[in-house]
Amino acid sequence: MADHQARSGGDERPSGIPAIRWEEPPEGPVLVLLDQTRLPAEEVELVCTDAPALVEAIRSLAVRGAPLLGIAGAYGVALAAARGFDVPEAARSIEEARPTAVNLSVGVRRARAAHEAELARGGDPAAAALAAARTLHRQDAEASARMAAHGLALLDELLPGGGHRILTHCNTGALVSGGEGTAFAVALAAHRVGRLRRLWVDETRPLLQGARLTAYEAARNGMAYTLLTDNAAGSLFAAGEVDAVLIGADRIAADGSVANKVGSYPLAVLARHHGVPFIVVAPLTTIDPDTLDGASIEVEQRPGFEVTEVVAPQAQITGPGGGIPVAPLGTQAYNPAFDVTPPELVTAIVTEEGAVTPVSGEALAGVCKRAREAAAG
Amino acid sequence: MADHQARSGGDERPSGIPAIRWEEPPEGPVLVLLDQTRLPAEEVELVCTDAPALVEAIRSLAVRGAPLLGIAGAYGVALAAARGFDVPEAARSIEEARPTAVNLSVGVRRARAAHEAELARGGDPAAAALAAARTLHRQDAEASARMAAHGLALLDELLPGGGHRILTHCNTGALVSGGEGTAFAVALAAHRVGRLRRLWVDETRPLLQGARLTAYEAARNGMAYTLLTDNAAGSLFAAGEVDAVLIGADRIAADGSVANKVGSYPLAVLARHHGVPFIVVAPLTTIDPDTLDGASIEVEQRPGFEVTEVVAPQAQITGPGGGIPVAPLGTQAYNPAFDVTPPELVTAIVTEEGAVTPVSGEALAGVCKRAREAAAG
Repeated sequence: MADHQARSGGDERPSGIPAIRWEEPPEGPVLVLLDQTRLPAEEVELVCTDAPALVEAIRSLAVRGAPLLGIAGAYGVALAAARGFDVPEAARSIEEARPTAVNLSVGVRRARAAHEAELARGGDPAAAALAAARTLHRQDAEASARMAAHGLALLDELLPGGGHRILTHCNTGALVSGGEGTAFAVALAAHRVGRLRRLWVDETRPLLQGARLTAYEAARNGMAYTLLTDNAAGSLFAAGEVDAVLIGADRIAADGSVANKVGSYPLAVLARHHGVPFIVVAPLTTIDPDTLDGASIEVEQRPGFEVTEVVAPQAQITGPGGGIPVAPLGTQAYNPAFDVTPPELVTAIVTEEGAVTPVSGEALAGVCKRAREAAAG
Repeated sequence: MADHQARSGGDERPSGIPAIRWEEPPEGPVLVLLDQTRLPAEEVELVCTDAPALVEAIRSLAVRGAPLLGIAGAYGVALAAARGFDVPEAARSIEEARPTAVNLSVGVRRARAAHEAELARGGDPAAAALAAARTLHRQDAEASARMAAHGLALLDELLPGGGHRILTHCNTGALVSGGEGTAFAVALAAHRVGRLRRLWVDETRPLLQGARLTAYEAARNGMAYTLLTDNAAGSLFAAGEVDAVLIGADRIAADGSVANKVGSYPLAVLARHHGVPFIVVAPLTTIDPDTLDGASIEVEQRPGFEVTEVVAPQAQITGPGGGIPVAPLGTQAYNPAFDVTPPELVTAIVTEEGAVTPVSGEALAGVCKRAREAAAG
């Protein structure tokens, strides 16, 4: 069961309301999510008291973003355990809420494995599941902080003058992470040390994550930001107004090809044409050694109504897709969820273990190997 | 005074209702406009009986597009003359409806000059103004037809295999022209001879002219078309799905730099990166010899609310800009109306006098000179 509650405060934290938090009021433990479908119009929290409520929140995109989904999945298992529900059944239903989200599945399985191991040991399995979720949450926040530091160091090295004007795409901040995110976290780190002159925010059609979410996060953090349509980025490059492009990644193939939100590849081509660094910020878990190259990445095609209709939080719903029709009825649309940028157009991939530059399969394999050895030793 | 009337028929013409027409019902002459602000949701005609009604239609963008504005302006002067209003006063008010629209001013002045000359001659000045408007209308339709033929010939030369997959941006068809338009007219000509395999239609943020108007025209003409977000074009190029880019132009500088709807330049960079022809289709009147180069073109910055809010014909109006807010209130937006593509990225400029390729200041001056000589001789 989920309840909505309006959030009145939040001003004590410059970065706003956390995207996810675990609370233990007298009535029993709950998982509290910031409802991202209502942003930026309203800051409303969604209180989940069981797995079905979380499943509904995941399906409706109230909670979204690869790392955050993993954390939410782990807490969901912990919630089912703490409330005395059937844990394997809850885990299965959460995993199936978005079958293609790898991180969700990883998070669910990690908490469930902790639960089962502790059950076999005769201890407190609910506490073990919660501890696993909290560890995942903390590790993700730590990875964010380390990516931000490495990314800022790279920016300062590439752009010694300071006063960075950074262009970003989609949403990669605290709304998709247990910490402050990936690419956005680097821009935020630059802002905090007074070296961010301007954050250029692509609106990111069709779902407008840039306009709705990144602009919201930039405003909450007091950053100097300007919104633009995705197709206006070319004018900024031509005017010499972009010092670096910073984006996240959905998946990175073994050869360094980067799958990210549609619209990333055109920015990489523009950046190359204008001699501007194109930097990908992503945790090592994004690197998929089983996907050999860019051509092996299967691109999800999403429903055409995301293009033929515009969905906005305050809009009157009128079209068959739940939005406002902007094209003739029956119009077919091409709507790939992401695109693939080849490694030769990527200046650097910044991970929690440092920046990989130049990008190559060997260099990526090397940083992954060092991280595994450090974790083992 | 303007009246709205719903149009029931229109199916007898595959290309739909004309954007503009002069009618002489028993009540007196009228200028009938297709109200483009209501497309694609509704096909509604706006009947103007005087200059103030036309001024309002121009200001509200019910009638838009450079060549069409010129024709509308000329008919507006003819309407004032035919209805016995003060012609200089009407001409001035129409010209001021959109002061930066050069074509509007040219059309108004042409009809007014005809009116004055005939007045001095003691003939029928209202008939002279109408004849001037009709000549401008016919000349624009003829220029469209010739650009379409030259463009089709160029496509067949560049892409001998046929089965063209053409990407276009913004709206360049019968809704902006006395004929069938510029770039769109070329795609339509290819369609009519069975050589258009697919028209890829950029939605063209922020005002969505592609989604609202080009998709409407493509559907009315039975063309195979697919809509996409502007940022998805990169994926199409990468997949080898684009054989040529066809766009119009707002202004062409003497050196061949092309100012066109924002988003054109990124397509030119992508086309070059992928070895795909980038073709501009525009009448000779678009070439401005007084603008020396791309850097001399002043780019109009439009209101930010076009980006921070989405305007759709069927939408409930809620935001300060008259649309649906999609970004946090107070968000600043960068919103250039057009961008500039340098001549070295333009494969050809197709005019009514043939294709200029390669593009250079000398070649453009040559075609303009030949056209002037042909008109004089």
